Amino acid sequence: MNSFTDHPHRRFNPLTGEWVLVSPHRAKRPWQGQVEDDVLPQMLEHDPDCYLCARNTRINGAVNPDYKHTFVFENDFAALTPDAPAESFEDGLLKAEGESGVCRVICFSPRHDLTLARMAVDDIAKVVDTWVEQYQDLGAMPDINHVQIFENRGAMMGCSNPHPHGQIWASRSVPNEPAKETENQRAYYEKNGKPLLMAYLEQELAHRERILFENASFVVLVPYWAVWPFETMVLPKRHIRSMEEMTASERMDLAEAMSKTTIRYDNLFRTSFPYSMGFHQRPTDGEAHDEWVMHAHFYPPLLRSATVKKFMVGFELLGGPQRDLTAEQAADRLRGLADTHYLAG
Amino acid sequence: MNSFTDHPHRRFNPLTGEWVLVSPHRAKRPWQGQVEDDVLPQMLEHDPDCYLCARNTRINGAVNPDYKHTFVFENDFAALTPDAPAESFEDGLLKAEGESGVCRVICFSPRHDLTLARMAVDDIAKVVDTWVEQYQDLGAMPDINHVQIFENRGAMMGCSNPHPHGQIWASRSVPNEPAKETENQRAYYEKNGKPLLMAYLEQELAHRERILFENASFVVLVPYWAVWPFETMVLPKRHIRSMEEMTASERMDLAEAMSKTTIRYDNLFRTSFPYSMGFHQRPTDGEAHDEWVMHAHFYPPLLRSATVKKFMVGFELLGGPQRDLTAEQAADRLRGLADTHYLAG
Ligand SMILES: O=P(O)(O)O[C@H]1O[C@H](CO)[C@@H](O)[C@H](O)[C@H]1O
Ligand SMILES: O=P(O)(O)O[C@H]1O[C@H](CO)[C@@H](O)[C@H](O)[C@H]1O
Repeated sequence: MNSFTDHPHRRFNPLTGEWVLVSPHRAKRPWQGQVEDDVLPQMLEHDPDCYLCARNTRINGAVNPDYKHTFVFENDFAALTPDAPAESFEDGLLKAEGESGVCRVICFSPRHDLTLARMAVDDIAKVVDTWVEQYQDLGAMPDINHVQIFENRGAMMGCSNPHPHGQIWASRSVPNEPAKETENQRAYYEKNGKPLLMAYLEQELAHRERILFENASFVVLVPYWAVWPFETMVLPKRHIRSMEEMTASERMDLAEAMSKTTIRYDNLFRTSFPYSMGFHQRPTDGEAHDEWVMHAHFYPPLLRSATVKKFMVGFELLGGPQRDLTAEQAADRLRGLADTHYLAG
Repeated sequence: MNSFTDHPHRRFNPLTGEWVLVSPHRAKRPWQGQVEDDVLPQMLEHDPDCYLCARNTRINGAVNPDYKHTFVFENDFAALTPDAPAESFEDGLLKAEGESGVCRVICFSPRHDLTLARMAVDDIAKVVDTWVEQYQDLGAMPDINHVQIFENRGAMMGCSNPHPHGQIWASRSVPNEPAKETENQRAYYEKNGKPLLMAYLEQELAHRERILFENASFVVLVPYWAVWPFETMVLPKRHIRSMEEMTASERMDLAEAMSKTTIRYDNLFRTSFPYSMGFHQRPTDGEAHDEWVMHAHFYPPLLRSATVKKFMVGFELLGGPQRDLTAEQAADRLRGLADTHYLAG
């Protein structure tokens, strides 16, 4: 095990059944490639040109309400629409099927200049409540079997508006990633009679090598099989299959976990840290799914500084993911950071 | 089938067993997000500061030879090294194993200012010969069971030096993607007695909807299940399992196919088109692998212009890939372009 800190090795992800190549010695590589723009803080609390700010008019003429906490609306350029025909097509190796669904946008706060990392925990708790409501509302629709809640944070992650917001894409089909997680969790549950992620959390709590934050209900850790340089996972301490099973205090604890994680991220390179983040939880297909443990994944691209990211390109796309520091090294660095925001008073 | 041109649908990739979400109506979405730098052409034929140019000194003190066509050397910052111990580790859900291998760099030409798109077909044929040699040389090593040949083209794809070059990462393990392709090709072969990709090519040659180029030995097409906006695949017309099975004229035809594809890409947005490209072919594990058909994948990120790319982020990372135009629309656009380079006299 010891030599794994210095030598290339592969680690297995039991949730997806896939491997990641870890090359710890490679962190010394100099970088002469593309450098990203650093992120300047947003100065305006209300931007008259922002289509997500309260009271402003969106591209389709709709006027946003004077919202005080969160605000949800249907995506004006939805990738999924409710009316897509359900027909399917198969001709030899060509195989397709109609896909229907709903895409929504959630504004996290009326304040244009904030991010999760700089919002109060009480205000993040309002976002958590909105996620739960949306999961229930969308999940109850007849043709919706999966609800994907996520946030693309920062221009580097394809986000085209700095106003704090996330998205939900709810669909008839269970997408690839949660489908793999369902399959692997189910196989483990059938074999071992307990949920894979509960067993995994027990191991992590025993080792404590990869944990960066913990409260009464949640643990934030760098998974053993992390792909992105500072990837983390947020796991509940008890068996919660999906969001609506959280108690009031668990919702508050989740808000705190989201806050502490994003603050540490911003502190790492003293920048508004980009990431894609989202929740995986049980499909809304009406089955019990006792194998499922809800969790969040943070996939942040930065590697060395506010402007140098990890590129998932040639080998990664054609072979498999590769990383330059171990999960333990990443956890060490994140754990060592202050958990108050570097811009705070 | 017809409604699939206008409505969201999913398509199945029989090589990987995964789905892609296609949202053709979404191409109308305005873009206010991150805009990439346009690529300026390289002016110098020999750059004294480039560590890949002939006669220059690399970071480790080695001096490049005065090469005239291609030049291969071991990567100075290799992600894989031959000496990594082969030990394996398993403790509950933590599972890892040592991974050894060899990483090499291939300079495609001494000319610093060229790219595959602007090289003569005869000179690309020298690159093809080098790929074949390397596949054979590395594949014959005792602990090398897979040879991944690839190119990251352009800073947007993590390439840190514009000098035309590619890489090879050869490893003990077969990485995730070729492992999935092996499994699915094998299952198809066992069931149908012919290779999956030969059957697929027959269908494409009958429809001709997604083909952009064809010569005596190779076909270039946008696969039915393409993920990246202008993704293409290069397929041989006869059952070739791996590179060294190509005849002399097939090598020349492959060089022409690579040339015509990269020229069309550059012409699409009149820029030096970024992509990751690589070959999938039979693992070098000593088995026959009659199910395998060698092929190349081009994964280019640009979506709308030389500076607006497709982001594979929130939904894509947490759910599954999504695209905004159909494979047929992409093929139409690529087919309609000139196959002489826009910069050529
Ligand atoms: O090997 P290079 O050119 O230094 O690095 C580039 O290609 C590698 C293989 O796809 C990636 O892992 C790196 O993220 C990328 O920057
Ligand atoms: O929906 P948006 O914010 O317009 O778009 C962003 O998120 C989507 C979901 O991850 C991606 O498909 C887009 O590439 C990205 O730019």
